[in-house]
Amino acid sequence: MTYCVAMNLAEGLVLVADSRTNAGVDHIATYRKLHVFGVPGERLLVLQTAGNLATSQSVISLLRQRLNSSDTNLHSVASLFDAAGLVGNTLREVLARDASATLGQGVDLGCSFVLGGQIGQEPVRLFNVYPQGNFIESTADTPYFQIGESKYGKPILDRALSYSTPLQQALRCALISFDSTIRSNLSVGMPLDLLVYRAGSLEVPTGYRVHEDDPYFQEICGHWGAGLRQLLGELPAPPDGYWQ
Amino acid sequence: MTYCVAMNLAEGLVLVADSRTNAGVDHIATYRKLHVFGVPGERLLVLQTAGNLATSQSVISLLRQRLNSSDTNLHSVASLFDAAGLVGNTLREVLARDASATLGQGVDLGCSFVLGGQIGQEPVRLFNVYPQGNFIESTADTPYFQIGESKYGKPILDRALSYSTPLQQALRCALISFDSTIRSNLSVGMPLDLLVYRAGSLEVPTGYRVHEDDPYFQEICGHWGAGLRQLLGELPAPPDGYWQ
Repeated sequence: MTYCVAMNLAEGLVLVADSRTNAGVDHIATYRKLHVFGVPGERLLVLQTAGNLATSQSVISLLRQRLNSSDTNLHSVASLFDAAGLVGNTLREVLARDASATLGQGVDLGCSFVLGGQIGQEPVRLFNVYPQGNFIESTADTPYFQIGESKYGKPILDRALSYSTPLQQALRCALISFDSTIRSNLSVGMPLDLLVYRAGSLEVPTGYRVHEDDPYFQEICGHWGAGLRQLLGELPAPPDGYWQ
Repeated sequence: MTYCVAMNLAEGLVLVADSRTNAGVDHIATYRKLHVFGVPGERLLVLQTAGNLATSQSVISLLRQRLNSSDTNLHSVASLFDAAGLVGNTLREVLARDASATLGQGVDLGCSFVLGGQIGQEPVRLFNVYPQGNFIESTADTPYFQIGESKYGKPILDRALSYSTPLQQALRCALISFDSTIRSNLSVGMPLDLLVYRAGSLEVPTGYRVHEDDPYFQEICGHWGAGLRQLLGELPAPPDGYWQ
């Protein structure tokens, strides 16, 4: 499985992805699921992937291979909307390539993408590209997307995240969401790849890899776990009626 | 969907169940999913249900209807282990009754049960009965079961619950687990039915129903949400490396 979170907030983007892939518990590996494209001063495009690794790798490879071609590519599209369409079309191209050969073998070729970034004067935008190649865009009402194993880490986002949340706070929230998921589900695992983008900067960050022994990640996860247990202990005692 | 949690701890049992059923978003209803059997001073048996409502209602009805028969029933079995076997067999009986009539119609008749309680001198025991009618028992290593929509509410259990957790704290933990689930998933809904049992008492509690406007539930959920946001704000800021 996989877990990716992407937030499009007033101050910019926060994207975090785990790196575990598995085809059964005896076939665990580490693959990067956060891919950065862009031209400093002009555009940033970040893709997160979940689902069939053969499909998602092919899509990323084709997108990268075509950057220098004269065809429409991620470095030539005029808008993030067009970029989402290009990702969807490339996904359909790969699915069409592999579908007939795997027909009836029960292989799920499907994968999902989250695409975030900024092109020129456009605002920062964030898209969720479905396995069918169509897509939706985030809004201030619903400022985040999750793909993959999303349920364990959703409550903290629903409680603590809104469009106006500062990037620092949003990043902590995302990391806690990952800690919760990793503790409850073996198919999501370290290291994490994260990228923070300040709206309007048109920088192309390289991103940061959080390893299991990362001192900051360890510190906030320890702090969080202890804080939760203390908070739970400080809640008032149930009234007598609860013990009938 | 459904969400049920059952904890078998050093001090006794905590069981909480939601009451929402749905067959699509336009077919939502409220049904009790926590069912109490027992004889004060002799035995307590509590069942939680998830899955196909027609199946689980039939199983509960048959178990209750047979309490006064001379056949083996929940008030005559000598152990919780035998009770779990009886629940599993009754489930298989109902599935056999309905299976042929629904064959090929894509109806999932399956349902799961959690059975907790105490009979005479036996310790408190807790079983998870699978849709196939077989079952597993909780241990001090794994002192809780969840059935239904379990993922949203699992992180708080994994962080804060152990076999030695006092009943009061465990009940608060269960309620927070429900609050997290209800906020993130529409298929789980109020009211909640809960029951707390003190090991060795051989009482048969009636349990308590927590409605949406329950002052205590509202208080701890409000306290919890505010506390989480405060805790998140108090975490140290990410180091510079995180912003590359």
